Amino acid sequence: MSRAIALAAACLLVALPWRAPAAPASPLTLREQGSFFVGGETKTVSLPASGRMPAQHGDVTVNQMYVQYQIPLKGARHVPLVLVHGCCLSSKTWETTPDGRMGWSEYFVRKDRSVYLVDQVSRARSGFDAQAFDAVRAGTLANARMPSILQATHQLAWSVFRFGPRFGEAFADEQFPVQAVDELYKQMIPDLNATLPEEANPTWTQMAALATRLQAAVLIGHSESGFFPERAALIDARAIRGSITIETGCDTGLSAAQLATLAHVPTLVIFGDHLDAVTQPFSWMGAFDSCNTFVRQLRSAGGDAQMMSLPALGIKGNSHMLMQDKNSDRIADLVIAWIDRHVESAQGRGAH
Amino acid sequence: MSRAIALAAACLLVALPWRAPAAPASPLTLREQGSFFVGGETKTVSLPASGRMPAQHGDVTVNQMYVQYQIPLKGARHVPLVLVHGCCLSSKTWETTPDGRMGWSEYFVRKDRSVYLVDQVSRARSGFDAQAFDAVRAGTLANARMPSILQATHQLAWSVFRFGPRFGEAFADEQFPVQAVDELYKQMIPDLNATLPEEANPTWTQMAALATRLQAAVLIGHSESGFFPERAALIDARAIRGSITIETGCDTGLSAAQLATLAHVPTLVIFGDHLDAVTQPFSWMGAFDSCNTFVRQLRSAGGDAQMMSLPALGIKGNSHMLMQDKNSDRIADLVIAWIDRHVESAQGRGAH
Repeated sequence: MSRAIALAAACLLVALPWRAPAAPASPLTLREQGSFFVGGETKTVSLPASGRMPAQHGDVTVNQMYVQYQIPLKGARHVPLVLVHGCCLSSKTWETTPDGRMGWSEYFVRKDRSVYLVDQVSRARSGFDAQAFDAVRAGTLANARMPSILQATHQLAWSVFRFGPRFGEAFADEQFPVQAVDELYKQMIPDLNATLPEEANPTWTQMAALATRLQAAVLIGHSESGFFPERAALIDARAIRGSITIETGCDTGLSAAQLATLAHVPTLVIFGDHLDAVTQPFSWMGAFDSCNTFVRQLRSAGGDAQMMSLPALGIKGNSHMLMQDKNSDRIADLVIAWIDRHVESAQGRGAH
Repeated sequence: MSRAIALAAACLLVALPWRAPAAPASPLTLREQGSFFVGGETKTVSLPASGRMPAQHGDVTVNQMYVQYQIPLKGARHVPLVLVHGCCLSSKTWETTPDGRMGWSEYFVRKDRSVYLVDQVSRARSGFDAQAFDAVRAGTLANARMPSILQATHQLAWSVFRFGPRFGEAFADEQFPVQAVDELYKQMIPDLNATLPEEANPTWTQMAALATRLQAAVLIGHSESGFFPERAALIDARAIRGSITIETGCDTGLSAAQLATLAHVPTLVIFGDHLDAVTQPFSWMGAFDSCNTFVRQLRSAGGDAQMMSLPALGIKGNSHMLMQDKNSDRIADLVIAWIDRHVESAQGRGAH
């Protein structure tokens, strides 16, 4: 590299605003990485013959939760982060973005945070309980009782994820990289949560158990799993140091005792832009309002709770998939700043 | 560290046999990591209403293949490796072993190999085509035509994976870490390959496309996917520099033209121990014999093909899950040595 080019490059670096994406061509160094399961129960089943596989009567494991993690060199300095994806998605949500940029998982690792990616129970590498499907096939369970398989079409996703007013047409200030939307569609996979008990989703239990195993964790949920950090904390809040709830409807009907429990956990709720553009099949403004109510309830109970509406901060055009939006690094920085201030400073002061 | 301890530690290092597991407490440095999809087709579907989700008519993406990769600093020096898991499993196969040791994926990266982990089409993060299930639920497809969901019970796995002569009883020289077998059972998830066309599994096509995208790759398959490297090469062998087939039945009925194609790809077949201990539901000796025949056929066609029977090398007690066995590092070293000699030396000599 000539001196002139080097100088120009150095000036360019200096000229960049501090929030610009790091775009690191620099190597990533990890202290450790790996994967494991949390929970899982043995269930005795009778399985029909299939291909070369004989009929079987024996045990299978169900309700286990797959976790993939990376610990950076300085990971011990910060509280680990647990990230849980939404409906019809997997942990792919947090990895390389549809347009090929670094996702939140690696971005957080590069910010010295240990990151634990969860595939929800009944999804992706966590597997699912197939018994009801086998029973329908065998004729021992009525077809109508087969668990429904949740999927979103491209058309529904475009609308509900708030990419634009009509399928294929983006909002003028849209932050989602719509030119790469086909790569998001490939991430959208069948959702088998209907195989789980609605009022006691095992993912909540395993998230609480994961936090306990890590001794301390900030739980981050999105959309379908947006309120899972709170559900986990209602099961066992002891090791949950923070709840981050992204783009979901919040439960405004919690009891005083439940709110008292959650008030011990610093809570951040995040919403993007264009909430009033979607009213069907459900209202984003309704979801936003429910979370504003929940934040007020938590504060009344003495909690440290905050609603972060990105447009209110002057950050416009964010979609439902804000961790994949073009300004995803900037939003990740806001998350880190909130954790530093509300979780880690609080710990430093011995609040927990 | 005192001088005496340092000296003792140094002596210990010297005394270790060269094949001892690396057990690296050392950090791992990556040039790059991420994930992406190969392939995927748009399909127009009608989906029933489900929960808050309305009935939908629109497009979904099917047959995409999820790939997760890590490139080490010196990755460009070697041909990338593509690893594909077997029946009722996911890419978890290659990660942290059931007893908590480093899996082949990270081990290979630490040996300067770029590693690409594939979730088979219709499994885990690749998703699956749910249309036939929806149709049965709606009553528009006969129950008997619902794709069967393949699962293996703990009892069948213990037998077929050759952990021991009877459930819960291990072979005296068993290499699988049977004390941690519950962690393997958690990896075993429902297999939806019956949703795919049997004679044209999209995973084969996507594996060939992945090799082409990487410009060169060694494909490694195991069990259900053991012969997938060959199936991929029969679709497009141009960028496939090697096929490694682990513990499967081989196709001995390929045509002369097909064998001529495969003869361009150096091929390694690996089998573990205790093959004669299992005859039901299928015969491991029969699988072994079929692969010996296949290797002979490839050689007759001018190919560089090798059967690596671990017991014949004096390596005893390996199970079907040899990448998770206690001596998994040693077997990985054999794989690397074969690649260095049969793929990379050959390239160095301009054979390709």
